Amino acid sequence: MKRRKPDFAIGIDFGGTVVKMGLVNRRGIVTEKTEFTTKKACNRKAWLNNVQAGVEQFRKKSRSIAGIGVGVPGFANYDRGRIYNLTNVPGWTNVPLAKILETRFGLSAVIDNDVNAMAIGECTYGAGKHCRHAFFATLGTGVGGAVVINGNIYRGAYSMAGEIGHVSIRMNGHKTREGRGGLETYIGIGPITKYAVKLLRKNRKSLIWRLAGEDLTRVTPRVIAKAAARKDPLAIHVFNMIAECLATAFASVTYLLQPEVFIVGGGVAQSGKVLFNPLRKCLQNRLNPFFADRIKVIPAILGNEAGVIGCAALVFKSFK
Amino acid sequence: MKRRKPDFAIGIDFGGTVVKMGLVNRRGIVTEKTEFTTKKACNRKAWLNNVQAGVEQFRKKSRSIAGIGVGVPGFANYDRGRIYNLTNVPGWTNVPLAKILETRFGLSAVIDNDVNAMAIGECTYGAGKHCRHAFFATLGTGVGGAVVINGNIYRGAYSMAGEIGHVSIRMNGHKTREGRGGLETYIGIGPITKYAVKLLRKNRKSLIWRLAGEDLTRVTPRVIAKAAARKDPLAIHVFNMIAECLATAFASVTYLLQPEVFIVGGGVAQSGKVLFNPLRKCLQNRLNPFFADRIKVIPAILGNEAGVIGCAALVFKSFK
Repeated sequence: MKRRKPDFAIGIDFGGTVVKMGLVNRRGIVTEKTEFTTKKACNRKAWLNNVQAGVEQFRKKSRSIAGIGVGVPGFANYDRGRIYNLTNVPGWTNVPLAKILETRFGLSAVIDNDVNAMAIGECTYGAGKHCRHAFFATLGTGVGGAVVINGNIYRGAYSMAGEIGHVSIRMNGHKTREGRGGLETYIGIGPITKYAVKLLRKNRKSLIWRLAGEDLTRVTPRVIAKAAARKDPLAIHVFNMIAECLATAFASVTYLLQPEVFIVGGGVAQSGKVLFNPLRKCLQNRLNPFFADRIKVIPAILGNEAGVIGCAALVFKSFK
Repeated sequence: MKRRKPDFAIGIDFGGTVVKMGLVNRRGIVTEKTEFTTKKACNRKAWLNNVQAGVEQFRKKSRSIAGIGVGVPGFANYDRGRIYNLTNVPGWTNVPLAKILETRFGLSAVIDNDVNAMAIGECTYGAGKHCRHAFFATLGTGVGGAVVINGNIYRGAYSMAGEIGHVSIRMNGHKTREGRGGLETYIGIGPITKYAVKLLRKNRKSLIWRLAGEDLTRVTPRVIAKAAARKDPLAIHVFNMIAECLATAFASVTYLLQPEVFIVGGGVAQSGKVLFNPLRKCLQNRLNPFFADRIKVIPAILGNEAGVIGCAALVFKSFK
């Protein structure tokens, strides 16, 4: 007799600020959830105790659970189920988390970086659900990315493929530890804000200045987006710069990988039209007519639950 | 009873000047070969008649043939077995060549672009034979590329992934139909030569001038490479430029795809050390330490037979 597939998976979105947990069904719906602050769970033991409380809560709802998926903000190896280190969370260097979870809860477990998890969530249940090949990008403090091939994450030889933030858009551009002219050195939240502030210093007439309460330290991409939506020329100029940089990298990805679609998520992507309109236009100008007609650029749609749903999708994809 | 696998495949390297055919065994050795000029076979009928002569010659040597693989210089669709069009060979627009060959010879047939064929040849029998993930680049009139994932060509949504020649290395660089700042607009044979000639006009002391017989129209990458090998500063400067451009694109590919190795073929790659030494150095400077320690850049090794062997490898990979 063929065993029935479990109905649910547990997704754990291990963020730098909050750890979100959800019980997710095979249609990608979060039926139960809970969360705790990352700071509260300041060491591994505390973290696991908090996770245990969540798992117990979910098990009261269903015993038909395929496994646990964890998305982490940093360098993880999916194949080995191991966290190498987390950028902003101390105490998680070289941790075999999949094994620890499997031992503790008697459930299969997978670990991946948070961007891969969100990407597989969007391509299974969200914006990319009818696509075979997609590229997922997140615009936030840094710029992250993930490569989806045949509906699965392609991880490369070292489990971290898709790092579009380090793709060079200017051969002789900003020099960092990662190389020269990396995309995120131009359109991470920091560089965007810095660029806008520099322009604002010369032009206090911009609406950004008023929306930021006449305080340069309160300028953020969100404020700039609000001003752009109200047709402020300086704010529109900033978003055109973002679009041009992003389109340069997307054009390179198009020629290399030929995805059907770019799915764009993260805080800066919530700017909406003021980003997506110039982005689509710039990308078309940077592609030959064949691709210009075909490549789509769409916003991610799973929002705050993207991480949890994505981690659950990883479980369903991994344990069949 | 399990059927024995056929011993041979027929590889057809359909070049712009010469069509090379070979009978290739499962160890990647060409045991029989023949060729005809592309000009001679100026239409499809003549081409097929010439191919037929070759196939008959090979069938006298063995009846154990898995199929025919054809690598073409242009836009082909592997999945559909169709040539869309060939850059420098008229009369081959929208031709279902796989079907035509299958009908005529009663053998399975596959069609791919020549760069994909060479890449799979190198990764099966040549420089990349122990690799799972590789990137193959050819440096010639244009700059071509192919993505190898798990030992197979990744073709993307439109059968032409790997087009590194159009990867942008300068956001505001040369504008072409393909976009802006594309790699091959800097390091195709034309641009390399033009760059060297421009410098030579100001400096006739360079060895290049003498090696080209004091004739600027005879400056070629091969002549520049000879001068570089003899430590001519201008020639070395030209190769450093090529290396820096190529490294910029390779760094982006590394962050996106994480291949284990870059395999570099084509005429300009035959320059040897004067290219590979600065290329490796530039690439290391453009990667973080993790990748700088791991990524390898090596020359293709199958030489003139790369196309024929690659087409045969496509057959063995496609029909198992």
